Amino acid sequence: MSTTAGLVIPCKAAIAWEAGKPLVIEQVEVAPPQAMEVRMKVKYTSLCHTDLYFWEAKGQSPLFPRIFGHEAAGVVESVGEGVSDVQVGDHVLPVFTGECGDCRHCKSEESNMCDLLRINTDRGVMLSDGKSRFSISGTPINHFLGTSTFSEYTVVHSGCLAKINPLAPLDKVCILSCGISTGLGATLNVAKPKKGSYSCCLWSWSCWAGCARIAGASRIIGVDLNPKRYEEAKKFGVTEFVNPKDHDRPVQEVIAEITNGGVDRSIECTGNINAMISAFECVHDGWGVAVLVGVPDKDAVFMTKPINVLNERTLKGTFFGNYKPRTDLPSVVDMYMNKTPLKTTWTPMTTSSSSSSFSVRVKVPVSLQGGME
Amino acid sequence: MSTTAGLVIPCKAAIAWEAGKPLVIEQVEVAPPQAMEVRMKVKYTSLCHTDLYFWEAKGQSPLFPRIFGHEAAGVVESVGEGVSDVQVGDHVLPVFTGECGDCRHCKSEESNMCDLLRINTDRGVMLSDGKSRFSISGTPINHFLGTSTFSEYTVVHSGCLAKINPLAPLDKVCILSCGISTGLGATLNVAKPKKGSYSCCLWSWSCWAGCARIAGASRIIGVDLNPKRYEEAKKFGVTEFVNPKDHDRPVQEVIAEITNGGVDRSIECTGNINAMISAFECVHDGWGVAVLVGVPDKDAVFMTKPINVLNERTLKGTFFGNYKPRTDLPSVVDMYMNKTPLKTTWTPMTTSSSSSSFSVRVKVPVSLQGGME
Ligand SMILES: [Zn+2]
Ligand SMILES: [Zn+2]
Ligand SMILES: [Zn+2]
Ligand SMILES: [Zn+2]
Repeated sequence: MSTTAGLVIPCKAAIAWEAGKPLVIEQVEVAPPQAMEVRMKVKYTSLCHTDLYFWEAKGQSPLFPRIFGHEAAGVVESVGEGVSDVQVGDHVLPVFTGECGDCRHCKSEESNMCDLLRINTDRGVMLSDGKSRFSISGTPINHFLGTSTFSEYTVVHSGCLAKINPLAPLDKVCILSCGISTGLGATLNVAKPKKGSYSCCLWSWSCWAGCARIAGASRIIGVDLNPKRYEEAKKFGVTEFVNPKDHDRPVQEVIAEITNGGVDRSIECTGNINAMISAFECVHDGWGVAVLVGVPDKDAVFMTKPINVLNERTLKGTFFGNYKPRTDLPSVVDMYMNKTPLKTTWTPMTTSSSSSSFSVRVKVPVSLQGGME
Repeated sequence: MSTTAGLVIPCKAAIAWEAGKPLVIEQVEVAPPQAMEVRMKVKYTSLCHTDLYFWEAKGQSPLFPRIFGHEAAGVVESVGEGVSDVQVGDHVLPVFTGECGDCRHCKSEESNMCDLLRINTDRGVMLSDGKSRFSISGTPINHFLGTSTFSEYTVVHSGCLAKINPLAPLDKVCILSCGISTGLGATLNVAKPKKGSYSCCLWSWSCWAGCARIAGASRIIGVDLNPKRYEEAKKFGVTEFVNPKDHDRPVQEVIAEITNGGVDRSIECTGNINAMISAFECVHDGWGVAVLVGVPDKDAVFMTKPINVLNERTLKGTFFGNYKPRTDLPSVVDMYMNKTPLKTTWTPMTTSSSSSSFSVRVKVPVSLQGGME
């Protein structure tokens, strides 16, 4: 039992008062966790494009004031009634989507899209009572994705917390709660490695090349409009590049040509609808698998000739790499701890991940980028 | 060694002299097999929509005179040079697509789209020398799909022949060389059974319901515009029906409603582009798999909102149920021989298959519908 259990905790948090305006570090009050909730001390948090996207709030119904942040790692401070699978002092990763364990999705081996705790970007309150656990002088501050990790303490539904190996370095594994797990799961769980040497095409997010390398791809083709990214992408394992701008014909034709008919696997991370279509059409007939990850505009339409499907191509989509947060993340962390290839591949991502570009663009307080202690 | 080996065999065949005109039974001369070819006696042949489609020759470059037919079973009469995996007297199924064993597709565990012997509807001659093995008074008669089974004897590439259990009843297993294997493979190899009780949606071709039942589906929903087909479909195992004409909203919404979010598997056999789209969108998010089998118009475009994919749905296409003809068909035949459920499910299909409807529409000589002896 911690000495703060059951009490309101005053602490620092980065508040977004308005869309697109710099975050302000202020004192907030964090209420104790209710039934099935956990209050955790956030040790490390990083930034992801999703935070940026909802902070800009273009084309969405804005929900402010709000505490953003969802890529993080920390320690359980106290637990609400009925919480049995984590206890005070446990090391945990909060996740933007949850696992209730009881719904049809949670019971399916194939899905991680929990009916109860599936990501909800519009909700700014806790599920149990429809209220926020954050306030400033009585004014409630909205939650974000049920995580709100830009705060020294936050309250999370226990179904959105993965209990991890206490020896795992929290400053490193915090990124496993979002992007890297999505990339790793997209390659390992969804595209699935192909036996023997094979080719994989990545549409942007070249940091995931490390994931493709882990999955055994020998030829990793990066597709990106910006040649400035190529040098960095090579460090992550991209072996060659195709710039759609360099060609007069559809890039899928170029890729088919250099790969003798198409790549074995293709992973689309941009959310650009044309990239999505090209990513599908560039896989080899007979066995090629394309995985869509990037989220497109509401009005986008995926279009392709049916023969592209009939010729034994597979199109799949994934959400958080098909990982179930509570069930699967602990072993992803263990994989990070145990396997040297993972370590060497992932280490650079901590520094070169989206955090740094975010700091340039949004001027997030420096204290939030490393750790919060 | 048969007494006819190496000689031209005169025999009866059903000749299509012109598009859409009744077939004429005539005497043809069947030349001996060349290298890697096999001449077989056709014991039983049935009819499939594909024969009808190319006989009508609408929107295709017509290739006449031609001998149609590709669903058949027979016995090897003689073999050409280099043929080692079948010999005189073997029982065989000719298949409209082949398996060379050497190309990337044949070497892939996932594909059956052989680079060398993949279906070719435009070719009317043999691969080795570009010539026909059929002639009437010196006039060459075109082959169809490399099988041309509407003839007492035919010549087939050895890569397009499956050697089967000699105890299998040829009058029954002839249908395994096309439609039924496509349906069985689409459900078993591509849609793949889901553990436990599950739902499957079939778009037309309700005779495949038997395949879905074999694959373990407990709820089999037939989607068909024609309610007259429902009674017959029930015999094959369809448990309920949805007629898109009965509803003002998209049929995928109706199916989602009656199945609490969508079916687990969906198989589209009509080739109608709207049915293809609905068949995809009616599968459950998280785990649903849609398999496209039907071949649409050249100009058709498959369109869907990307979120339908991103929500962890899978879209796949298949060709001949992903079966490799030489490798896999022998065990499909054995499955037919060994398993009672298969027997009872399939037996009615022999009589109610497309043969009978063909006979009404095309007036195929009765002798071709049963067997040719
Ligand atoms: Zn994220
Ligand atoms: Zn759940
Ligand atoms: Zn057929
Ligand atoms: Zn081949």
